[in-house]
Amino acid sequence: MTSALPLAAGRIADLRAALSRHAIDAVLIPSSDPHLSEYLPDHWQSRRWVSGFTGSVGNLVVTAEFAGLFADSRYWIQAEKELVGSGITLMKTPTAASPLHVQWLADNVPEGGVVAVDGAVLGASAQRAMAAAFAPRRLQLKLDVDLMGDIWRDRTAIPGGAIFEHAMPHAVTPRAGKLAAVRAAMKQAGAEWHLLSTLDDIAWLTNLRGRDVAFNPVFLAFALVGMERATLFVADGAIDAALANTLAADGIDLAPYANVGAALKALPDAATVLIDPDRNTVGTLGHAKATTRWIEAINPSTLLKSRKSASEAQFVRDTMAHDGAALCEFFAWLEAAIADNQPLTELDIDREITAARAKRPGYFGQSFATIAGFNANGALPHYRATPEAHSMIEGNGLLLIDSGGQYAGGTTDITRMVAIRNVNEQQKRDCTLVLKGMMALARMRFPRGTKGPMLDAIARAPIWSAAINYGHGTGHGVGYFMNVHEGPQTISPAAQLSPHHGMEPGMISSDEPGIYRPGQWGVRIENLLLTVPFETNEFGEFLAFETLTLCPIDTRCLDLSLLDATETAWLNAYHATVRERLAPLVSGAAHAWLMQVTIAV
Amino acid sequence: MTSALPLAAGRIADLRAALSRHAIDAVLIPSSDPHLSEYLPDHWQSRRWVSGFTGSVGNLVVTAEFAGLFADSRYWIQAEKELVGSGITLMKTPTAASPLHVQWLADNVPEGGVVAVDGAVLGASAQRAMAAAFAPRRLQLKLDVDLMGDIWRDRTAIPGGAIFEHAMPHAVTPRAGKLAAVRAAMKQAGAEWHLLSTLDDIAWLTNLRGRDVAFNPVFLAFALVGMERATLFVADGAIDAALANTLAADGIDLAPYANVGAALKALPDAATVLIDPDRNTVGTLGHAKATTRWIEAINPSTLLKSRKSASEAQFVRDTMAHDGAALCEFFAWLEAAIADNQPLTELDIDREITAARAKRPGYFGQSFATIAGFNANGALPHYRATPEAHSMIEGNGLLLIDSGGQYAGGTTDITRMVAIRNVNEQQKRDCTLVLKGMMALARMRFPRGTKGPMLDAIARAPIWSAAINYGHGTGHGVGYFMNVHEGPQTISPAAQLSPHHGMEPGMISSDEPGIYRPGQWGVRIENLLLTVPFETNEFGEFLAFETLTLCPIDTRCLDLSLLDATETAWLNAYHATVRERLAPLVSGAAHAWLMQVTIAV
Repeated sequence: MTSALPLAAGRIADLRAALSRHAIDAVLIPSSDPHLSEYLPDHWQSRRWVSGFTGSVGNLVVTAEFAGLFADSRYWIQAEKELVGSGITLMKTPTAASPLHVQWLADNVPEGGVVAVDGAVLGASAQRAMAAAFAPRRLQLKLDVDLMGDIWRDRTAIPGGAIFEHAMPHAVTPRAGKLAAVRAAMKQAGAEWHLLSTLDDIAWLTNLRGRDVAFNPVFLAFALVGMERATLFVADGAIDAALANTLAADGIDLAPYANVGAALKALPDAATVLIDPDRNTVGTLGHAKATTRWIEAINPSTLLKSRKSASEAQFVRDTMAHDGAALCEFFAWLEAAIADNQPLTELDIDREITAARAKRPGYFGQSFATIAGFNANGALPHYRATPEAHSMIEGNGLLLIDSGGQYAGGTTDITRMVAIRNVNEQQKRDCTLVLKGMMALARMRFPRGTKGPMLDAIARAPIWSAAINYGHGTGHGVGYFMNVHEGPQTISPAAQLSPHHGMEPGMISSDEPGIYRPGQWGVRIENLLLTVPFETNEFGEFLAFETLTLCPIDTRCLDLSLLDATETAWLNAYHATVRERLAPLVSGAAHAWLMQVTIAV
Repeated sequence: MTSALPLAAGRIADLRAALSRHAIDAVLIPSSDPHLSEYLPDHWQSRRWVSGFTGSVGNLVVTAEFAGLFADSRYWIQAEKELVGSGITLMKTPTAASPLHVQWLADNVPEGGVVAVDGAVLGASAQRAMAAAFAPRRLQLKLDVDLMGDIWRDRTAIPGGAIFEHAMPHAVTPRAGKLAAVRAAMKQAGAEWHLLSTLDDIAWLTNLRGRDVAFNPVFLAFALVGMERATLFVADGAIDAALANTLAADGIDLAPYANVGAALKALPDAATVLIDPDRNTVGTLGHAKATTRWIEAINPSTLLKSRKSASEAQFVRDTMAHDGAALCEFFAWLEAAIADNQPLTELDIDREITAARAKRPGYFGQSFATIAGFNANGALPHYRATPEAHSMIEGNGLLLIDSGGQYAGGTTDITRMVAIRNVNEQQKRDCTLVLKGMMALARMRFPRGTKGPMLDAIARAPIWSAAINYGHGTGHGVGYFMNVHEGPQTISPAAQLSPHHGMEPGMISSDEPGIYRPGQWGVRIENLLLTVPFETNEFGEFLAFETLTLCPIDTRCLDLSLLDATETAWLNAYHATVRERLAPLVSGAAHAWLMQVTIAV
């Protein structure tokens, strides 16, 4: 990263000159794009380009006197390194979602001053919160000045790669059926139109996929859904003529990506448009006529997408078996390499695990960047080994591997601990506590609609009982050949309590408690869970979890004496299932390894 | 209740005539008073007086054409009986806090119409929510018309009984220290003044108690705290000269109860006044000058009051031993009466349990109306036996007893199940599941600041696992010789997630999961828990619960085979503690009973 440092200082200077030209007191550069995506195409990496900080989440604030990067604890070590010499102060925030940067602006910009943010990448809800924070000191929010255009001359183009169909048999629900379901929700909300900016909602609705964004099989687009036809705004040429004809037959017309604003503006006076204010930017919405009547609600597709159909769930089960079989091949290789005392690095893990997955049917790519962290590196929840910075896997300890794949039949995400030779007693206790938490949530039964904080507590309780806690949520929603992080549900202490965020049958969620000891080791164990019906009676409708992930848990990392009878029985039953499901899909060393590690304890 | 019925119809007619005279389209009569108390003095029982419905929570809406009582499921059976012949429709609401009545008004009053509510009993937050709901159809909210004054001619007077000191040794913290702590919070919030309308906050702050309200040892008052002196607005003559002198020496001046409005009005222009908008009515606040600068926050005393000091906790422990000893005497009597086949009713339970408590040091009165429900009556969480309607305790089954006392050294609240002769297997399973939930929460360890929904889930999980749920929260805060229900913490799925509502050391909370089978039986087991430090380390500050309540749990109601080793050990350890602590305080039959029922299982 050292090469970025002089650049950052110069770019801050350029930015300050632009502030001065436009009579702006402060600029906020967030980590976002017009689609409010988790992974940003290079075109919208303004914050990274200006500051040199490469972390995925952080807000840059620049005034004539001050430049600060607001980032949460995941990034402090990295940011301190990357910001050296840039003149940018690291401002530590308690959480990723903390509005500390907004508060800083509200407190420090002179009364009546002007704060610029690029409206094209600012969510409507975020804009409202900012305006409210700025009101007491009458700060003005300027959303339409293109400061990056002034200073970023060789800016990367907006991607617009080929778009393809999520094909049968895996695309279980036809796009016509999805459009009908969304229109039913529009009708109920009293809306004639519906604007979508979020890429996974659009890919789900259209049964299309792309490669415009890292790890997420989506493409850059907006969608405007009317009661008869829908318009998909995509890059020219991204969809070939044959697919365009298919879409047209299903009621979907194409338009250039840049035309979404004009299309919004062309809606009839007083048109009623359903929008999710958390999922559209003020820049996009700002194109509409002033008479437009916005109807605010969660995107109907977010709810529909989260509830996988029975056929989708069955494809996911098959995909999980192949993903687990690939992992058996990887683990058999790893055990042999360790037994041979081969020199191994964390990068080898990524390469081998990805190669094993790539041989499996329907494989498309990684669902996120593999995390392979040995000992102290495992204590960094978002660690990623790079050619410049990684560790050798040597001596004794714990190797944390968090990885996943995108397949036509589903998206996987799994974390396993591996014992590298000797594991000490405290490491075993940590692994066992985490496993107890993971199993407690997996065994949980609960009323339909139960909210994230209540489920989160179940996984955390065994870990809390040892006076240990972890700083991330216990689980996130997972898509179907789609983003590995999706809503509306999250299993987290801070999860929202509104009715839209409750657990519903068909949701897929991760179950991944952890323990992190900075400088020593980190433990996380993760399976994916499908929410399934349990029982309906006079007390209501109850749900349970079906564990989808199929991969052995390394019992060499465990202190089995800490498990109670129920927990031991769960572990043995899980290993019996894993053996039964994976054995037909592996052979040779992988088969032998599977047989050995799934013996009951 | 039959005598009330013709009255209600006549009073609705009188009210409609008053609506017509004042050109009002609808009136809302809530269940509240100027102090937003749980238990209302008769003077403010307007809803009960008009409708004849005697339940504690319900909103009456009357228009020229419609009269509806909005009440939640606890009251449906009772309300249907009490409303017969009144012309009032029972409107079923999903929860006690449901704003369905506000929505009904927003939907049904003609556009631009006038809705009257007595501002004197309407909380400021409630008024805002109502105004927001009424805005789309431009309904006007009229807060200053005294409809009840028009029609309720023999209205009961406002109480104003004698006020006395919560004396030493039990009043551990001097009122001067409490005033200083409140003033520190005022200063931090930038307020020169602080208005208190809630009776428990005022009684806590002043170390005074009274008998103006049922079950709560409080008195009718307002308090206005300045930086030098505070004014207590109470009934003339309620405080004698000696106590008035003591208070004056501590910086507290007295003024007539009715003068609070004038005192607010007399504050300097632009005075900064700290108020909790959930804890003051618009009627009270409306007396202030328009220039008053309200600073809104939770009452500082609510937070301070919830955290009992070490000395207060020690008095509570002593009080719990005496309360438990009283219960031993009661249970010994009950067992003998049942063995003798004496005719017994639910009313006998209330009488005997209260008589046993009354003999104990520092006893002041019941902390709420005893709930003694045999079999099907136990399935009504808010059942109260009356001379007109109660059951014989005969044959076999489960007797649920929920009762508590006010003592100078603390407030108690306990629920126990009693086996009446034979208890069947399903009843035993229900009791055991509830006990498992109760014990799981009692054993819990958790980070400081953990919120209610997360703790609630721990108690619910064992019950959910059998596809059973209960419709109330798991726990409420408990005062120190104070209201048996106090905030800010609640252990409930719907508990607030703001930082002020997290668990803090020194809080006392109930732990009372349940199972209710309408028409059959109900189960609830309740202990009070003190939040205590557990461990502080690199992961943060962790808390645990100390069980305060000391009283045997009837193991004849249990299926011991359903308990795991940890649970059995907890139960045996609890009974060993109960025996050790209570044995010195009981003799004769009570002592013999205690020895027998605390034998390890």
